[in-house]
This record gives sequence, C-alpha cells and structure tokens, in this order.
Amino acid sequence: MELVEKMLGGAQRPLSRLITLVERESPEVPEIMKAVYPYLGKAYTIGVTGPPGAGKSTLADKITTVVRNKGLSVGIIAVDPTSPFTGGAVLGDRIRMQQHYLDPQVFIRSMASRGSRGGLPMTTRNVMKLLDAFGKDIVIVETVGVGQTELDIMETVDTTIVTLVPEAGDTIQTMKAGLMEIADIFVVNKADRPGADKLVVELQTMMMLSPRSDDWQSPILATQALNDVGITELYEEVEKHEEFLKSSGELLHKREQQRKEEFIRAVEQRLRKRLSRLMKDDDKLMALWAEVERGDIDPYSALEVMEDEAVSRGWLGK
Amino acid sequence: MELVEKMLGGAQRPLSRLITLVERESPEVPEIMKAVYPYLGKAYTIGVTGPPGAGKSTLADKITTVVRNKGLSVGIIAVDPTSPFTGGAVLGDRIRMQQHYLDPQVFIRSMASRGSRGGLPMTTRNVMKLLDAFGKDIVIVETVGVGQTELDIMETVDTTIVTLVPEAGDTIQTMKAGLMEIADIFVVNKADRPGADKLVVELQTMMMLSPRSDDWQSPILATQALNDVGITELYEEVEKHEEFLKSSGELLHKREQQRKEEFIRAVEQRLRKRLSRLMKDDDKLMALWAEVERGDIDPYSALEVMEDEAVSRGWLGK
Repeated sequence: MELVEKMLGGAQRPLSRLITLVERESPEVPEIMKAVYPYLGKAYTIGVTGPPGAGKSTLADKITTVVRNKGLSVGIIAVDPTSPFTGGAVLGDRIRMQQHYLDPQVFIRSMASRGSRGGLPMTTRNVMKLLDAFGKDIVIVETVGVGQTELDIMETVDTTIVTLVPEAGDTIQTMKAGLMEIADIFVVNKADRPGADKLVVELQTMMMLSPRSDDWQSPILATQALNDVGITELYEEVEKHEEFLKSSGELLHKREQQRKEEFIRAVEQRLRKRLSRLMKDDDKLMALWAEVERGDIDPYSALEVMEDEAVSRGWLGK
Repeated sequence: MELVEKMLGGAQRPLSRLITLVERESPEVPEIMKAVYPYLGKAYTIGVTGPPGAGKSTLADKITTVVRNKGLSVGIIAVDPTSPFTGGAVLGDRIRMQQHYLDPQVFIRSMASRGSRGGLPMTTRNVMKLLDAFGKDIVIVETVGVGQTELDIMETVDTTIVTLVPEAGDTIQTMKAGLMEIADIFVVNKADRPGADKLVVELQTMMMLSPRSDDWQSPILATQALNDVGITELYEEVEKHEEFLKSSGELLHKREQQRKEEFIRAVEQRLRKRLSRLMKDDDKLMALWAEVERGDIDPYSALEVMEDEAVSRGWLGK
C-alpha cells in the first residue's frame, strides 16, 4: 500500500492520513493493518488515566520531556471518547499549547470522535500500531473520560498510570476493584495540596487488602506535574514495570491476548456484515425481520426461528 | 416461567430476583424476556441524564412525587455504569435516603455493575421491560455517568431530560451534536445560581442553530429541584412530548427500531457462541487460532483464511 510505504519512510502526513482512515473505520483498515503488521512490536506503550481535573495532560506532557531527554521518540494519543459534555476542541487547544508541539520527534493526535459502540478501543489500538510501525519508541495514550471505554483502552497498553488528586481521598473507598487491577502505577498528583499523604497511605492500605493477581506491586507516587516534581521517579517506575513485564513473560502473554482479541473482533465484524447480506437475500428471513419490527414476535423467539432456518440451510455448520 | 408469573401477580421479591438474573446476563434471560413479552408496552419511560453534580437524583425524586400525586406508579432505575472512580455504594445510599423508599408504589433499583462491553444498555433495556410488565406506569432511568453507554441508554427511553447547571455555560459551546439530538427537554437546574438565565439563552441559540431532525422543539426549563421549583412545569413538558411522539407516529417508529436492535443484538450474541463452538471442533481453525496467538499471522490475514474455510465448509451460505 503506497500510503503505508510513505509512512514507513518517515513522513508525518501519510501517518496522519492513515490515522484518519482508521478513525473513520474505512474499508481500507484491514489492508492498512496487514501492511504495517511486519513493523510492529517495537514501541512501549504507556496509558495515563484518571478522573477529570487530575492533571493527566500535564503528566503526559512531562513524561514526554523525560522520554525525549533520553533521546527516544514519542507518540501521544489523547482520547476523549465519551463525554458529550466536554468537547474535543478544548482538548485539542490545550494540547496544541504544549511545548512539544514543535518537536518533530513528538507526534500528537487527539481523538475526540464519539466512536461506535465498543469500537473506540479497537480504533485506538490500531492508531497505537500505526505509531509503532512509524517508529515511535514510546506511545502514550491519555484518556480523558473515566468510563468503560477508557478501561478497555487501558487494557491494551503495557503500563497504566492511574492519576488521582488529594481530594479523591473522600471517594477512595468506592473505587472499584477493576481500577485497582489495571493500575500498574498510582500517581497522587497536585501533591502540594492538603490530603496527599493521607491518600498515599489509603492507597497503600487498599493495595495490601486486595493484592493483584500477578506479582507486581503497584507503586504509589506523589507528584506535582506542573512543578516537575516526581516525574523522573515516575518514569523510573515505568521502566521497572516494563522490566517486570519482560522478565515475567507477562508482556508476551499480554500481546498474545491482544492478537486473539483483535482477531475475534475482526471475525465478529465480518460475520455481522455477512449476516445482514444473507438476510437481505432471503425472503423468509426478511419476513421474519418485518414481524420483529411490528412486534408480532418477540426478539428471542425470532432468534430461535432464525437459528432453525440457518441450520436447515447448512449455515453455521450442523 | 414460575418466577415471571409471580412477578406478574404483583410480588416485588420475584421482580427483584428477575432483575438480578437480567443483570448477571443469566442463561435464563431469553426465556424471561419471552415470558414477559405479551405484557409490554404500557409504561412510559423517562430518562434523566447530565454531568455529575447537576442534581439528577433530586430531579428524578421530585418527578416521582409529581407522578405519584397523579396516582401513577413509578419504577426508577439508577444506572452508574462506567465510572471506576465513584461507586455504587454511594449511589445506593443516596437513593435510600429519599422519601419514596417506603412507598410500595415506587420501585427503586440501582445498577452499578461495570457491565460487559456494550452490554449495559441492553441490560437496562431488559430491566425497563420487567418494570413495564410488572405494571409500572412510569419508568425513570437516571444515568450517573456521561459517556457513550449513557447515550446508548438514553436512546431507548421515550423522553430524555438533559440536566445542566448554570456553571455549564462555559463549556456549552463544546457540547456535542449527539447530545442536542437526544435532549427532548433541557433543564437548567440549580437555577438560583448565577448564570442560569444566560445558559437558557445560550441553549435557545444552540437549538436555533442546529434544529432537530424531527419536528419537536426541545423546551428549555429553569428548575430548582431541591426547592420544588419548576418540577410541575417540567412534567407538563414530558406529557407534551409524549403527546407529540404519539400523534406524530414517532413512538411507534421508536419502538420498532428498538425491537429490531434487540433482535440484532440477540442474533450477534448467539452467533458468537456458535462460532467459538465451531472453531473448537475444527483442527484447522484451532491451528489458525494458535498462529494468531503466536503472532505468526496478522489478524486480518487470519480472518481471510477463516472466511475461506467457512465458505468451503458451506457455513454462512455461498
């Protein structure tokens, strides 16, 4: 694919165009992802998540500085998938103001699209792959929302940093187990505010009460991203976690899981398309469809009819 | 089904048990939904959504008072699907404090489960149906988060109330089109705070600039839910919207769409199960699966192989 070759050659414009195609779930996505596949696996990916106002953008910005000082290149994906109440424009402006905007070794992309049901994690994953194939050493994914989609996205990165602020102490008891499990590193940001020490202790207690299923002990760090306090230490912890993932075989396992997950998603998508085509060509199934629409049959009884028909036609095996 | 019969007889305990089964996506769900199907279609459903802190719970509470004063029964579903940062316990406690907790004509259920990918809107929909079959005249669905899942849920109710607070004025420009389209009624709550009038005007301007695709003009109301100001007027607007949906044929159309959507979801779910069973029985496909896991083949090439195999076996038609 010509666009992919140009991108692999190091041109940013083709990269941007490819990302746009992926975002729009273009029919060319399978072809694109096939073409970049041989060039994957080099980038290390870091996720930054947390509630609104926790300073995630600043944190991602400062981590980028540390990474750039090590001579590594960076791709940043800022995802604002879900909230209909705050828009992508604000996010884009905020990012554009940051110091790395003019650094050619830093590629920043914000994805503010509403995204189709369950589709955004896969889209984000594919954009991560493009940045990987493009040659970025580190890919940082910042999620702005705090929902299921963000948790799904965080499951696809190598190291997840959960960012909180001292005021979060009040609600810390209500944090769900799912979050504990995804947090490879906890950051208490804006730690110059009152309550920071208390929150660190509470998080330590939580970690002890519900240890993770792997052997990683999530560290809890106090930072002041705006004042550059604690960022170097934070990145050291990221490197330690990377080392842990590699030596324990966890990284390999994670990537195997991701490949299987992607395959299943792709199969499902294809299946759905095939199914609607099959139905349209079939008078009996179109009649069933009309019955469902009118409410003459409940969806689950219709499903049984449909399944019987499919089996009798030899679809889906015996 | 015995449990359904008891529930239809008016007992709350079987209703609670059925909701739990639906929430857990029990294998009995299709049977349950089939059994209640003949008793559906009576309840009118109202959604209350908006950003955190907008007073949605109080609003739902006060609407319930108005509805109860008309002698109608109410079911309330409080959905907190996504945020891993605030938990269901807080929500449950808040609701339990409310005045309607002891009223047998008001059934309150909070659903704080994380939910599977895309599954929560369908689960919520099924719980709405149970409350409908149970005989509730009005079902109120309150979503606490502000994400894609909430938008999906709002698409399944008859009237959606989007609740904002005066302070939202600053970010109003960034509200996404999707939200405008789902808001059948805008409420500026806590309207005693500064900025309320300005926000009302801004919303009116927005409505003029991007009119809805149907003929409904979403009214914009100022309320103070805590002080019982504007609630009667709000409910009058709900009734007007119900009248509009009925006379325009929109309600019928909406329910047709819902039935089709439910059918498709059910078919997809079944398909996924069948597919994994087919794969497990097939050496060639299991070998492909292992290749995907190891990364020896990219997911999209694997998809093509799989599709060829499926076609050559006569699955999925010709």
